[in-house]
Amino acid sequence: MLNRYPAPIHGARNPGQTPDVTTPGSFANAPDIGGPMMFSSPDTPGMPAASAKTAWDFLPDGWQVSRLDASMPSDSMPSASSHSVAEFTTARGQRLRVAYPAGFTPITQLESARLGIVTPEMKRVAEREPHFGVLCDGRGAEAVRDEVAAGRLVIPANINHLKYKLDPMAIGRASLTKVNANMGASPVSSGTDEEVEKLKWAERWGADTVMDLSTGGNLDECRDAILRNSTVPIGTVPIYSMIIGKKIEDLDWSIIEKSLHQQAQQGVDYFTIHAGVRRGHLKHVKNRLIGIVSRGGSLLAKWMLVHNKENIMYERWDDICDILRQYDVTFSIGDGLRPGGLADATDAAQIAELETLGELTERAWRRGVQVMIEGPGHVPFDQIEWNAKIQRTLCHGAPFYVLGPLVTDMFPGYDHITSCIGATAMAYHGAAMLCYVTPKEHLGLPKKDDVKQGCIAYKIAAHAADIALGIPGTRDRDDELTKARAALNWEKHFELSFDPDTARAYHDEDLDVDTDFCAMCGHDWCSVRISKEIQEFMSGKADGYERVGAGGKLGAPVKSAALTPEQEEILAKRGVLSPDEIHKLASKTKKAVGADAGKANCHSDYVDPDAAKGLQKEKVGVLVQVDLRPALGIAKEDRVV
Amino acid sequence: MLNRYPAPIHGARNPGQTPDVTTPGSFANAPDIGGPMMFSSPDTPGMPAASAKTAWDFLPDGWQVSRLDASMPSDSMPSASSHSVAEFTTARGQRLRVAYPAGFTPITQLESARLGIVTPEMKRVAEREPHFGVLCDGRGAEAVRDEVAAGRLVIPANINHLKYKLDPMAIGRASLTKVNANMGASPVSSGTDEEVEKLKWAERWGADTVMDLSTGGNLDECRDAILRNSTVPIGTVPIYSMIIGKKIEDLDWSIIEKSLHQQAQQGVDYFTIHAGVRRGHLKHVKNRLIGIVSRGGSLLAKWMLVHNKENIMYERWDDICDILRQYDVTFSIGDGLRPGGLADATDAAQIAELETLGELTERAWRRGVQVMIEGPGHVPFDQIEWNAKIQRTLCHGAPFYVLGPLVTDMFPGYDHITSCIGATAMAYHGAAMLCYVTPKEHLGLPKKDDVKQGCIAYKIAAHAADIALGIPGTRDRDDELTKARAALNWEKHFELSFDPDTARAYHDEDLDVDTDFCAMCGHDWCSVRISKEIQEFMSGKADGYERVGAGGKLGAPVKSAALTPEQEEILAKRGVLSPDEIHKLASKTKKAVGADAGKANCHSDYVDPDAAKGLQKEKVGVLVQVDLRPALGIAKEDRVV
Repeated sequence: MLNRYPAPIHGARNPGQTPDVTTPGSFANAPDIGGPMMFSSPDTPGMPAASAKTAWDFLPDGWQVSRLDASMPSDSMPSASSHSVAEFTTARGQRLRVAYPAGFTPITQLESARLGIVTPEMKRVAEREPHFGVLCDGRGAEAVRDEVAAGRLVIPANINHLKYKLDPMAIGRASLTKVNANMGASPVSSGTDEEVEKLKWAERWGADTVMDLSTGGNLDECRDAILRNSTVPIGTVPIYSMIIGKKIEDLDWSIIEKSLHQQAQQGVDYFTIHAGVRRGHLKHVKNRLIGIVSRGGSLLAKWMLVHNKENIMYERWDDICDILRQYDVTFSIGDGLRPGGLADATDAAQIAELETLGELTERAWRRGVQVMIEGPGHVPFDQIEWNAKIQRTLCHGAPFYVLGPLVTDMFPGYDHITSCIGATAMAYHGAAMLCYVTPKEHLGLPKKDDVKQGCIAYKIAAHAADIALGIPGTRDRDDELTKARAALNWEKHFELSFDPDTARAYHDEDLDVDTDFCAMCGHDWCSVRISKEIQEFMSGKADGYERVGAGGKLGAPVKSAALTPEQEEILAKRGVLSPDEIHKLASKTKKAVGADAGKANCHSDYVDPDAAKGLQKEKVGVLVQVDLRPALGIAKEDRVV
Repeated sequence: MLNRYPAPIHGARNPGQTPDVTTPGSFANAPDIGGPMMFSSPDTPGMPAASAKTAWDFLPDGWQVSRLDASMPSDSMPSASSHSVAEFTTARGQRLRVAYPAGFTPITQLESARLGIVTPEMKRVAEREPHFGVLCDGRGAEAVRDEVAAGRLVIPANINHLKYKLDPMAIGRASLTKVNANMGASPVSSGTDEEVEKLKWAERWGADTVMDLSTGGNLDECRDAILRNSTVPIGTVPIYSMIIGKKIEDLDWSIIEKSLHQQAQQGVDYFTIHAGVRRGHLKHVKNRLIGIVSRGGSLLAKWMLVHNKENIMYERWDDICDILRQYDVTFSIGDGLRPGGLADATDAAQIAELETLGELTERAWRRGVQVMIEGPGHVPFDQIEWNAKIQRTLCHGAPFYVLGPLVTDMFPGYDHITSCIGATAMAYHGAAMLCYVTPKEHLGLPKKDDVKQGCIAYKIAAHAADIALGIPGTRDRDDELTKARAALNWEKHFELSFDPDTARAYHDEDLDVDTDFCAMCGHDWCSVRISKEIQEFMSGKADGYERVGAGGKLGAPVKSAALTPEQEEILAKRGVLSPDEIHKLASKTKKAVGADAGKANCHSDYVDPDAAKGLQKEKVGVLVQVDLRPALGIAKEDRVV
């Protein structure tokens, strides 16, 4: 059908090739794990091309890599006695020989990958993200290793954090898009237990990594507790603890060195270091509407102005690399000059810094350290693709970790929304991890519910991008939910939802019966019910998706279960129902609603279909006047199969 | 700076051309009002090209248009006595001669536009959207007329609605992106007053049009009241009232004719008619996961199956056009086969119907009726651009009015977010109006706060797209807010916000003092404060943006005003502060906080800077240990200018 019209054929399968269904990522580029495009969007004309270089082009001194022809015997290659040699085959079947200084012991994931070693962490990543294996002929762990070696994938796993509960994960465009949640915004009143609780809350709502940005309280004790309790990687911005109790101008190398060692020793998995803000960039900031909005960036700018010196983090970059390498701490190179408003986006300051971030990436790779790059911030929607792709060019595919970006500035209170729009586009065009923004952004400290709202908005962004990029398997749960929705199987619908309690509570607010319609359109106007009843359609007829009512009867209305305390709280906050009404929904018992002894499902308190409609009429008030079933010769109580 | 890197130069100005600032729409195509691209995104390779045809190619029988050379005397053109002739110059300076049947009187905006007439409604549109004048040498109203004549812009303004309070507006890609809010979802308990109140609420939160989808109550009385009270165009789906109290299979032409006349007579501005669902399309539906999810579409599918006949709306299309023309009701041709899940997006059913919508567009234009086209629904992010652009091809630029689309299916309860992501991309790639989706979508009837949340999510989408498309002036308020934010002028910041009460309430939840930081980072970590204090930066120093404190003193902290009832309610719903604490914030009086007699601003209850920090410490608990001002030789209380 569609092949009558011009359609982009970048993807593995185009909708035009199969007339009745579309496929995930149809319009994205075909997957290319192991190549420069990985999962990627097609370039709008004029976009900068992906860098032709990878971390293989930035090996440490004394290292060398050769691509061997499969027919060439390996002993024909030269090897000096001062060097050891590793040979291995990539997931794509390319044979590599790596010469490196004799006696060298790999510490970081990058170093292991360069030697062809598949670490337990790489194996775990391939297990958690089975698409690596699916797309690479079962060589998933090797494919992960190859991406790590290329510098396009990082596994932030401090060797000391691995001793606790860290479950290794990866960040890079060949893997699923990840979400970071920030916490620990410095209450002195907040104790260690409270911070651990926040961590668990962020993990519950899907945060893939957590940054501890504490600037108050017992920082060390708190960080230690977070590291001991987290299953996700933990990031920090070490400059915060470097200047607690000091003046920024007193910052010197001894303080930096001590702090980095201490936090790395504790087990922090990645450090944000704002080494890219150089003295020479500050002139580009002068006409900005809102200067520097990165905390670390503004502090270091102040340091440079006070001392009239180059950024100390930049000057001591190689020394910093050597500290991080010892613990396999990953760099998250900070974008101190990220724009703080649409007007400052993609400006000279931002791009000058990004060039420096590229240089710092190359230097870190030369010292064996894993790298990701932080990005904006506030970017108009039309500039997002270019922002993602110039990073890919300048930083040679190092994972891009962006904050939003917000696509408009004038909706404070809703910046989880303004920014998750930009985040979706940024992830589709190349970002690998999204730092969440909460509704309290620009206004105050996020509270528990803000953290949840921020996490969910960003899980939406990450998931939508993964579907768009065509990562195998990512759309399965959406399709299952669609089948449950088509079958009007509410319980299954909600189980498949990201936030089942909210979905259930919103549904039951209007109608606490699971039946063949909901209160939005009512019985007569439910297009899903009508589609399901059309015999010729598959709609709502998928095996295992039917709603089982009383006594195993398919499709019969059932009274929904009593609200859980979580669902009660959700409804109470909405303020639509009275406390009495909510209490009634929450205190339902089987006895109260007249349970049917033979029912197959604990949610299946049978309700007569007419009673369901009556209830709907009473509670929602939709007129019930049209019933299509007689027109089709279908008995009132029967489903059509 | 940027011109060192390849950058797309589609737009009027590229960021690379001005080193220190970016411009709105830099990466979009250059504006082309009067041409086929209008405001548009650059095409990803493989996208279908814009149609070379416009409504000028589909004139009624007996009409003819000629493009005159300026040097050609107009009397040299042939003209039959049975025809009249209109000659006029377009906003772009092209001279047109239109021959039409003698005695013809234009009724619709399209017919007037074809005769070169600038109607009062076109003038009003140009006044409300000054960019038409800005980009067309002051000939804004003429440019509006030309876009209407081309069929790319509609002004839904029923001649009878114009007798009430309708403020004419336009929908089309040359104008700002519009947002529609649905209401009247059929409560019999809901009286006319209540529906009018809902209308006002939707207007308050920025709805540009409202659809009354009532299926219960006194439909006629309610619709009449809505029309008499609305300043925005009102749309309906007339099939709903056609079958109230009847069976769908009883639908016939006499019922259709009567309903259309009656609603048009009342003043409805646009009708959704699902004439594009044809009998031959239903075979493409059979393997869908979720069949037909449009109410009108599913009802008409049922009608066709019961009667084994072609869609009656399709068969009687010309007759329907003739009714709409009499009142200048605009078509919103319904997409009865829009996908109800990602799996069904861009499938054969959807595209087959879209072809028919193109045919119906041509036929409506031939009968002088304005047209817009409804679109999906649920579409993976990668398929959005193609969906927008195939509509532009098949429907010759007729405005595209889309519902979302959702970019993932598994977040019920959050579908205002999942869909506003898709809506932003759809508007950037070509949609002209976005139908909102509320958090209750798929679950139940939206309540008052759901309507607000849906409106705001969609105002974000529309505004973000307008900025990205580079519509002149659209980013001004964002930039003003950024300046206020940079100046830490909280009152101005909130005044410029889309929802000032929410922004203020969230801010005051933590800290009810307006000072040089907020509770998010606290004093010492506020990058905005640090940037503002760097003398070399412009940041926070824009004229008229400084925060005036007590006695006219710049930058002095001030106690914020007492919470309004709206702000109280917002905080109460969040449940972070206790009712007592909220009451305290709401019951502040000048007396209670020790007002300063000489203050310039009613919000300026002076607070000593140390007291502000103390308050912050007490309430938020951020440690206050670093003060950069001494390092810069700046007095503690002074601002740096």
